[in-house]
Amino acid sequence: MSYFDAASAAPLHPVARQALLASLDEGWADPARLYREGRRARMLLDAAREAAAEAVGCRPDELVFTSSGTRAVHTGIAGALAGRRRVGRHLIVSAVEHSSVLHSAEAFEAEGGAVTRVPVVRTGAVTVESYGDALRSDTALACLQSANHEVGTEQPVAAVAELCREAGVPLLVDAAQSLGWGPVAGPWSVLAASAHKWGGPSGVGVLAVRKGVRFAVRGPVDERESGRAAGFENIPAIVAAAASLRAVRAEAAAEAVRLRELTARIRERVAAVVPDVEVVGDPRRRLPGIVTFSCLYVDGEALLHELDREGFSVSSGSSCTSSTLTPSHVLKAMGVLSEGNVRVSLPAGVAGEDVERFLAVLPGAVAGVREKLGAPVAVAAAGVRGDALVVDALGKRCPIPVIELAKVIGEVPVGGTVRVLSDDEAARLDIPAWCEMREQEYVGEEPADRGSAYVVRRLS
Amino acid sequence: MSYFDAASAAPLHPVARQALLASLDEGWADPARLYREGRRARMLLDAAREAAAEAVGCRPDELVFTSSGTRAVHTGIAGALAGRRRVGRHLIVSAVEHSSVLHSAEAFEAEGGAVTRVPVVRTGAVTVESYGDALRSDTALACLQSANHEVGTEQPVAAVAELCREAGVPLLVDAAQSLGWGPVAGPWSVLAASAHKWGGPSGVGVLAVRKGVRFAVRGPVDERESGRAAGFENIPAIVAAAASLRAVRAEAAAEAVRLRELTARIRERVAAVVPDVEVVGDPRRRLPGIVTFSCLYVDGEALLHELDREGFSVSSGSSCTSSTLTPSHVLKAMGVLSEGNVRVSLPAGVAGEDVERFLAVLPGAVAGVREKLGAPVAVAAAGVRGDALVVDALGKRCPIPVIELAKVIGEVPVGGTVRVLSDDEAARLDIPAWCEMREQEYVGEEPADRGSAYVVRRLS
Repeated sequence: MSYFDAASAAPLHPVARQALLASLDEGWADPARLYREGRRARMLLDAAREAAAEAVGCRPDELVFTSSGTRAVHTGIAGALAGRRRVGRHLIVSAVEHSSVLHSAEAFEAEGGAVTRVPVVRTGAVTVESYGDALRSDTALACLQSANHEVGTEQPVAAVAELCREAGVPLLVDAAQSLGWGPVAGPWSVLAASAHKWGGPSGVGVLAVRKGVRFAVRGPVDERESGRAAGFENIPAIVAAAASLRAVRAEAAAEAVRLRELTARIRERVAAVVPDVEVVGDPRRRLPGIVTFSCLYVDGEALLHELDREGFSVSSGSSCTSSTLTPSHVLKAMGVLSEGNVRVSLPAGVAGEDVERFLAVLPGAVAGVREKLGAPVAVAAAGVRGDALVVDALGKRCPIPVIELAKVIGEVPVGGTVRVLSDDEAARLDIPAWCEMREQEYVGEEPADRGSAYVVRRLS
Repeated sequence: MSYFDAASAAPLHPVARQALLASLDEGWADPARLYREGRRARMLLDAAREAAAEAVGCRPDELVFTSSGTRAVHTGIAGALAGRRRVGRHLIVSAVEHSSVLHSAEAFEAEGGAVTRVPVVRTGAVTVESYGDALRSDTALACLQSANHEVGTEQPVAAVAELCREAGVPLLVDAAQSLGWGPVAGPWSVLAASAHKWGGPSGVGVLAVRKGVRFAVRGPVDERESGRAAGFENIPAIVAAAASLRAVRAEAAAEAVRLRELTARIRERVAAVVPDVEVVGDPRRRLPGIVTFSCLYVDGEALLHELDREGFSVSSGSSCTSSTLTPSHVLKAMGVLSEGNVRVSLPAGVAGEDVERFLAVLPGAVAGVREKLGAPVAVAAAGVRGDALVVDALGKRCPIPVIELAKVIGEVPVGGTVRVLSDDEAARLDIPAWCEMREQEYVGEEPADRGSAYVVRRLS
């Protein structure tokens, strides 16, 4: 098996494993107690905090360990918003943040707060200008990820942090995807991260709040971790998290170069060997190990199954995967194709041959899925009205509407239009994306009796 | 070293250790993913949930794993209160709940909710009658621990659950101290527990919410664990928690008998060999492994240090320990002496000889602390007003005010009074408790220029 989903969770680093085992016997007691076992647990916890703070680039007393990265984000956002409640009730996030940030923003809106979602350009990055435009006198907090979890694009965090500092607004950085590679640059105020992204164990998040940042913890009081992370400290896991962060950092420079070459090769080869594919994300300003692409006329879930059978574990932000039918909010915000989406995120230490084998297998897997989808049933061209053709794809799920569109576009004259009737939410994203890839004109969306009509004009 | 603080955290059970190691390699991936590693993680998680649900006595889909027992309590209380918001804004807790429950109650009060704190009798238990009296038509939730964490007294949970069911009020049971010994009886609605109390790893709590209980999770949305425990699941720890729960349950019946004998012996011997001691908690309706006593004229923290030097790790609910100067709310609610308090909580598997050695060491340790405290400095008997004596213990911390009282009580005639001036919060509890132990009359507390004057009448 080749596990290519490190952006979701990395396998346990050998150093983490060692540290966890060693501290199971030393770190189980209550570090608040004064007896020997408690003092020993406290020493382990303090040492882990020192190590983590050094890697983050903050003071040990600015850093607490939470039970997950999600919890660090939830607490960080809620605490900073509550701490600056008197300044105002405005929150800024980018449109491509992790769901833990976006769900925090929704919770804040439900309580009456105002949220600005800064859009991204097609690479997935915000521009410093548009982020700056969102800053207001009543802005309590701004949030920006260090790098995107779905496409790997790095955000201009240092420049945005500088802008925020000038405006007197604290910036919370979700550094989940990047902290293993290096510290976050710029004058950030709050930072959140997750150990299992860098090969640490599950159950450990990091929350750093710079001194001087107003911060008010909400919910029931709890004395542990400076009152910022309720519940008994999971010291063996914390020790393992800190040890593995130090270990991956020591390997980061060399491994980044190697993974960057591998992902550059994937970017290049996928575009060359898979027809009708869009490789997304910034080709240069990106994380070393992540590459994402979308395949026209492909059901993402079917492709994942196909790749799984071939021994490759990847994930997808496609609209057709998993329990949810909503296309990835990241791909949507970028305005790129979401259908047949695949995210490859290489774990540190991955073998180059495994990547080669993936590239060898991928074109056949994509072709196989396309073949199965190639003969959609009972899609009737409802008739030609002059030079306009109507395709009824109601009740058909992605990628069928786009496949049907592609089949009939040649039947209308250049300048003529195709109206695709669809009630699949993904069509709203995928039909414009197809037009851009195929250099046809996307005219727009019109209401229809059921679903919507997506109108496309043939240009060539 | 003899570790006698299992009620705080138990050392890792060998079965937990084995299960943790085994699942580090199998359970690190995201269980929401469809590829092999994800499916494997999901299977481990599902199996752990089945095992834990069986031990709790609920359906697997009623149980989620949280990141700690504290988190389970916080989420359980907030969720049940929010789910029954329309019924009313009244919460019932016992006065001797764990701080996670009491802090949740305070947070609820801060939001405008009303809280009734049901008092306990001198053994530390609520009576079913007084609990029933607290039920109101607008009661949204009632909380009762299965057994007390400081003194081991079992609460009449089954009877209270029955009352609550009749009243249509859900009962949340904090079963942290008892779940390793057996399931909670009676028709409870919500149950919270913590794995590291039964020898599981840190970082795992259990929250069970019966079907039909109205429950609304607060805070940002998160899909994991039925939306009730945000953040990536810590599957290796969860597997270890479930495996060790099953293991300790298999040993529970025999081990309970053995520990009960050991603690009965401590109860009896401590009362016999330590002068001026009060053994607290219910002598029969109690957890097998916990015994708590308080020693007059002893500084709890000094005694803990003395015992630690002799190789015994125990904890204290005394006012003189740790970072806080407030006496334990549990001892306070029971109306028993808090000074020189020691909680012995035996871990499963403890050796009988260690207990004997503890009993051999304890009298000398208590005597040593008393000797050191025996000559308090600069406490001036400010003068006799008729048959009234005033002791100025301002600025002196527990147990000095009580020691001074004991020294001078013989100097006033029977029927005369001693006024102890003290600004130590603990005096408010310890002086009445001393009077009860010494059969003197506690007249009451009067305001003074600094602190309070505690008036005691000599009866014998």
